[in-house]
Amino acid sequence: MHEKKYPLVSQNRDSRFVTLRFLQTPQGRSRSGLYLIEGIRHVARAAEQHAGVESVFVDPCLLSNPFGQKLARQLQKSGVPGIRLAPHLYRELTLASEPQGIGAVVRQKWTPLTNLQPTKHSLWLAVESIASAGNLGTIIRTAEAAGVSGIFILDSESDPYDPAAVRASMGSLFSQKLIRCSIRELTIWAKNLAVAIVSSSPAGLLDYKALRCRWPVVLVVGNERQGISDSLVEVSDFTVRIPMRGRGDSINVAVAAGVLLFEMASQCPR
Amino acid sequence: MHEKKYPLVSQNRDSRFVTLRFLQTPQGRSRSGLYLIEGIRHVARAAEQHAGVESVFVDPCLLSNPFGQKLARQLQKSGVPGIRLAPHLYRELTLASEPQGIGAVVRQKWTPLTNLQPTKHSLWLAVESIASAGNLGTIIRTAEAAGVSGIFILDSESDPYDPAAVRASMGSLFSQKLIRCSIRELTIWAKNLAVAIVSSSPAGLLDYKALRCRWPVVLVVGNERQGISDSLVEVSDFTVRIPMRGRGDSINVAVAAGVLLFEMASQCPR
Repeated sequence: MHEKKYPLVSQNRDSRFVTLRFLQTPQGRSRSGLYLIEGIRHVARAAEQHAGVESVFVDPCLLSNPFGQKLARQLQKSGVPGIRLAPHLYRELTLASEPQGIGAVVRQKWTPLTNLQPTKHSLWLAVESIASAGNLGTIIRTAEAAGVSGIFILDSESDPYDPAAVRASMGSLFSQKLIRCSIRELTIWAKNLAVAIVSSSPAGLLDYKALRCRWPVVLVVGNERQGISDSLVEVSDFTVRIPMRGRGDSINVAVAAGVLLFEMASQCPR
Repeated sequence: MHEKKYPLVSQNRDSRFVTLRFLQTPQGRSRSGLYLIEGIRHVARAAEQHAGVESVFVDPCLLSNPFGQKLARQLQKSGVPGIRLAPHLYRELTLASEPQGIGAVVRQKWTPLTNLQPTKHSLWLAVESIASAGNLGTIIRTAEAAGVSGIFILDSESDPYDPAAVRASMGSLFSQKLIRCSIRELTIWAKNLAVAIVSSSPAGLLDYKALRCRWPVVLVVGNERQGISDSLVEVSDFTVRIPMRGRGDSINVAVAAGVLLFEMASQCPR
């Protein structure tokens, strides 16, 4: 039997393409609560983890991988709406140097702070004003691998759903709890529920290796240049530093988050 | 007294500009043994560490920072040749979103493997086929901060002098010993001088936290997708893994290098 194909969009003024383009902008994402993903691995993982795939877009010329083709057919069969894009339009929607021909519109998922119950030995992460979306995505990927229970985003600018963040997160975004809140809200939550706050700073009082975690615990990392703000230092139970042993005076924020999270995770009595 | 200014280049066919453009390509860098850096921090650090600054290029319109202006004057006074570039030409030479108006041509520095003597408790790093120049640069920055004595580049493609690697290395490139050699050459060096080889792999036999280093030691990290090659696994004294605790199945290679290097450095009896 003839399978009905997704409708073809080849004009850049077509409202369906304009909507997709809009999701590449911060305004588009914040107004719609949606974001874009691209690539077989990302779309497959989003579908598998019920991440809220709203629609798909494919470029049949690029979609040569059999697993990718099967994925597109399955999504269509399960009733996910979609469009086929002309190659020049598809390319505008991806940062990939070798686009894979399948992408999706996914619903953002924010967990409200209220009723967020930390388990006894849970490890949490909070990030403040991470400037590079790529760094933010790498941090989310690292946090997921270290077994973090959720990530607090402590400012209104940094956007885990920015295309560069989504790309660097390698699909770990779909299963991670994300909470947007203020420093004050985080502090009240942590104090009420006896969650220790550990901040990372080059001026931290404690070598991170000397820290013996009190659980549950939230690690805070800050901006690439300024580090964490004074108000965060003030509410922290501990500030830790990673000692610099060579002539280099700093490390990348995602690397620092990795060093600290894996150290803390290894101390976890779970 | 009137200070003589660097000559102005405003045509993109000018041979001096063409030479700079050529250094943005792998061929240009490998044939000349030179590379480009951009930004006040990078140029200042290169000059300070006698990294081999051959010439400078400035865009006086962009160079508004007083420290940057002073740096340019000092370099000129100390006899470093240079040119002034028209803004549209300068922009072609930088990856920075906010270029700072000063850049330099620097001589590559490769340390030959012969006569490379490891000290008793030295930590070394070897990288195999890192595909992303940004990752390679971040790894170099991390290695420098962890106090690594030198970095072996085990393939002929990955280029620490690629503009994206230089940028991510944040100036740590200038003080780091870089050695290009084959796996066989590294192995002979390590065995002759009793340097332990520790490889990182998701299939590593040992949790990295269980490793007790034998010193001196070289840590090997591999390609973002394939990891380290079988021939490296074969010559390794240990293969270690970073346990994945969440649903994520991998971490970024620069983050992995950071987690392992800082763990090893903290065990160092120095």
